[in-house]
Amino acid sequence: MTLALVPGSFDPVTNGHLDIIQRAVELFDEVRVVVARNSLKTPLFTVEERLEMLREVCAPLARVTVDSFEGLLVNYALECGATVIVKGLRFVSDFEYELQMALMNRRLNSAIETVFLPTGAPYSDLSSSIVKEIARLGGSVEGLVPEIVQQRLREKYTIQST
Amino acid sequence: MTLALVPGSFDPVTNGHLDIIQRAVELFDEVRVVVARNSLKTPLFTVEERLEMLREVCAPLARVTVDSFEGLLVNYALECGATVIVKGLRFVSDFEYELQMALMNRRLNSAIETVFLPTGAPYSDLSSSIVKEIARLGGSVEGLVPEIVQQRLREKYTIQST
Amino acid sequence: MTLALVPGSFDPVTNGHLDIIQRAVELFDEVRVVVARNSLKTPLFTVEERLEMLREVCAPLARVTVDSFEGLLVNYALECGATVIVKGLRFVSDFEYELQMALMNRRLNSAIETVFLPTGAPYSDLSSSIVKEIARLGGSVEGLVPEIVQQRLREKYTIQST
Amino acid sequence: MTLALVPGSFDPVTNGHLDIIQRAVELFDEVRVVVARNSLKTPLFTVEERLEMLREVCAPLARVTVDSFEGLLVNYALECGATVIVKGLRFVSDFEYELQMALMNRRLNSAIETVFLPTGAPYSDLSSSIVKEIARLGGSVEGLVPEIVQQRLREKYTIQST
Amino acid sequence: MTLALVPGSFDPVTNGHLDIIQRAVELFDEVRVVVARNSLKTPLFTVEERLEMLREVCAPLARVTVDSFEGLLVNYALECGATVIVKGLRFVSDFEYELQMALMNRRLNSAIETVFLPTGAPYSDLSSSIVKEIARLGGSVEGLVPEIVQQRLREKYTIQST
Amino acid sequence: MTLALVPGSFDPVTNGHLDIIQRAVELFDEVRVVVARNSLKTPLFTVEERLEMLREVCAPLARVTVDSFEGLLVNYALECGATVIVKGLRFVSDFEYELQMALMNRRLNSAIETVFLPTGAPYSDLSSSIVKEIARLGGSVEGLVPEIVQQRLREKYTIQST
Repeated sequence: MTLALVPGSFDPVTNGHLDIIQRAVELFDEVRVVVARNSLKTPLFTVEERLEMLREVCAPLARVTVDSFEGLLVNYALECGATVIVKGLRFVSDFEYELQMALMNRRLNSAIETVFLPTGAPYSDLSSSIVKEIARLGGSVEGLVPEIVQQRLREKYTIQST
Repeated sequence: MTLALVPGSFDPVTNGHLDIIQRAVELFDEVRVVVARNSLKTPLFTVEERLEMLREVCAPLARVTVDSFEGLLVNYALECGATVIVKGLRFVSDFEYELQMALMNRRLNSAIETVFLPTGAPYSDLSSSIVKEIARLGGSVEGLVPEIVQQRLREKYTIQST
Repeated sequence: MTLALVPGSFDPVTNGHLDIIQRAVELFDEVRVVVARNSLKTPLFTVEERLEMLREVCAPLARVTVDSFEGLLVNYALECGATVIVKGLRFVSDFEYELQMALMNRRLNSAIETVFLPTGAPYSDLSSSIVKEIARLGGSVEGLVPEIVQQRLREKYTIQST
Repeated sequence: MTLALVPGSFDPVTNGHLDIIQRAVELFDEVRVVVARNSLKTPLFTVEERLEMLREVCAPLARVTVDSFEGLLVNYALECGATVIVKGLRFVSDFEYELQMALMNRRLNSAIETVFLPTGAPYSDLSSSIVKEIARLGGSVEGLVPEIVQQRLREKYTIQST
Repeated sequence: MTLALVPGSFDPVTNGHLDIIQRAVELFDEVRVVVARNSLKTPLFTVEERLEMLREVCAPLARVTVDSFEGLLVNYALECGATVIVKGLRFVSDFEYELQMALMNRRLNSAIETVFLPTGAPYSDLSSSIVKEIARLGGSVEGLVPEIVQQRLREKYTIQST
Repeated sequence: MTLALVPGSFDPVTNGHLDIIQRAVELFDEVRVVVARNSLKTPLFTVEERLEMLREVCAPLARVTVDSFEGLLVNYALECGATVIVKGLRFVSDFEYELQMALMNRRLNSAIETVFLPTGAPYSDLSSSIVKEIARLGGSVEGLVPEIVQQRLREKYTIQST
């Protein structure tokens, strides 16, 4: 049985992320979507809010669980018996950063393999940052993120703007 | 059971290809290395010579078979029940071409997924073209290709140069 | 009145090219699609076949004409009074080559401007080469090229394979 | 009549920006240079200071106006009747980000087209960030920015360093 | 006699930096490793801590000195008689930024030349940022940085985490 | 004393090549411009014609010699005592190929170092291929190549076109 991790900040989860998660399930026996707890970046949503949204959108997907982790991803992988890390690739700039991370993770633990999935054309221009930017400026993010995320973005920016 | 294809021209197979094949076996139940028969490029080795070298170097690897195919890779995948295509990525220029091929293959058959494996640092500068160029100019390719390929390259270029 | 040229080899014209041509018409008063006569590459279709396909698919488009040229594109532009060259951009590798050509064309004639249009997501993996490769290997190119091009590709490859 | 927007942060306007603005005027009937009011980045100059510098350097250019906007650029375009967004491209990294923005803007409003102009060779290494960095470290920015911007940079860094 | 500068933030120095410094000594008569004093980024180590680590790891290298500088690098180069700036290149994204800096430095002072050294394969995935990230998350950085840097990273993160 | 090689096909030498050669002389004691004899590509000029043009344009440069070589560049470097290979970098696509060659050359002989010089802005769009293309199509290459090369290109294309 192969357990694959789909790590990310998911701030918030987009339809592009969901596409990668669904395709990962086709490839591996079990998939765990994991949110990094100790990132240095300032997120829009708390880890708990992000986990809640992920749990709701992943609920219909069999063999997919959601979790968070602290410390090195390769250590978390070891603890839970995961041997694969799955990442989506959209752009050349993604590619270079992710290649660097993948090589470093192999250096830290050669038993854990990173595989890249090409992001499908309809999602190639979609990132959490762009989604937040559109929502912040009052645009519609319908079709870009799941229903629950649209709702949470509206709440977030209403609160911030009042 | 997941059958993964590792396609390529393998003209000739290098230690970088072998690394990808070995890592593909860790990820999927069975791996088939496949040589395209109807490429337009002028190869150094015939398809049969390339298959022979691949069979020899893959012989010690359990769950790895070697084959050739004609026509579209996605059609071959359908016929033999493969659902995954595995490709190594070394460079940005690889990435853009392979991304384009992967998107086109998904368009032709959305049931077949392409996954990319980052080429390990020791092989990042290694390609069949560079191996052939070094051998053609009389340099040593020890450590870059398996023993049998070193031998065949020597034969090829001795014959060509006499 | 601004006349814009959309140059290319169009071997054959794809739906991605058509998308660029249609968007060029929205931007400029008149658009002329032009095929280079003296390219060194070995095309699948003759210049006359390519012009015929282009004329058919551009017929419904008001303010679009089709022509071929010899020599430097900037000289052709001067002769017919065009001041703009329009090119689609899909990938980083496109970008570097086209940027080089655009700078060289400005050097040859600074009165002629090159503008780039980003290729829409549904066409980002589409090129004449990939279309020919699929057709050559017996795959369907429906949705990738206009009806007349599908037909001509079938004729071409039936003739070649018999 | 076609109205084209040249958006940016212009913090401050450089000779590279001016080159793009002047070339945009050759292509379209009217050009409006627009500064985004609600960017999250910490600028060196206030929106008002940036508008003032832009107004001074664009004053000699017929058919060019200067403005600022809040919210989504595509909404501003709709309100003022602009149908084209013009951006300069210098580097591959520019290209990927701008391509992503252009695709997202088309998704938000398909009636608005983004066109890219290749940055001329003398300006290919010029950005507002590099200009500010040189000025901050006491270097001369003559030839890189208009006279008024040189002056304002001197004032800014004198004030900051005292 | 040619004096070459190896500039950087060295926050902290890695084995990849050391490889570049050692190769620079093979190429030029004297090498000076220089830390920029007035960078805007928030470093982990103070300039003095970074200089101390550099001095210790460069002590065994003949013809290598260590210094810091304020203001423009080209001015510092002029003052100390250096005519060459040496930078390591690992990735495409490095390349574009460094190319931009090199062109700008030539513009500021055409007598100073920037040369790029390709980073050797074992260090191609190594950066100060990744080293700090691993150390922050409690991973081992053995083999990635000199002994003294391992020690200082342990001290830094122990102090921060208590 | 350091001897640096500037290798290439120089088919024909351009002003961009000359810029790199002149800057290499500033960096190293002696510079040898070397043409590869056994490339597989079909050149426009014979090796002897290319050497003749190079000898003429390099004649005014002190400490620069011109030669050709067969076999591996690293072997030629060993024979003549060169320890440095100098290459110009213009574009990302150059960079990836040259990085691959540099790593492979270090693998073949770790005593020989490749250094990259950034191509100055006025030459960033200039390559032998583009020069030949312009000349073939009847355009002027004044300012792009030395006088003698302009003359030879005219002769070549007059002969070919008659």
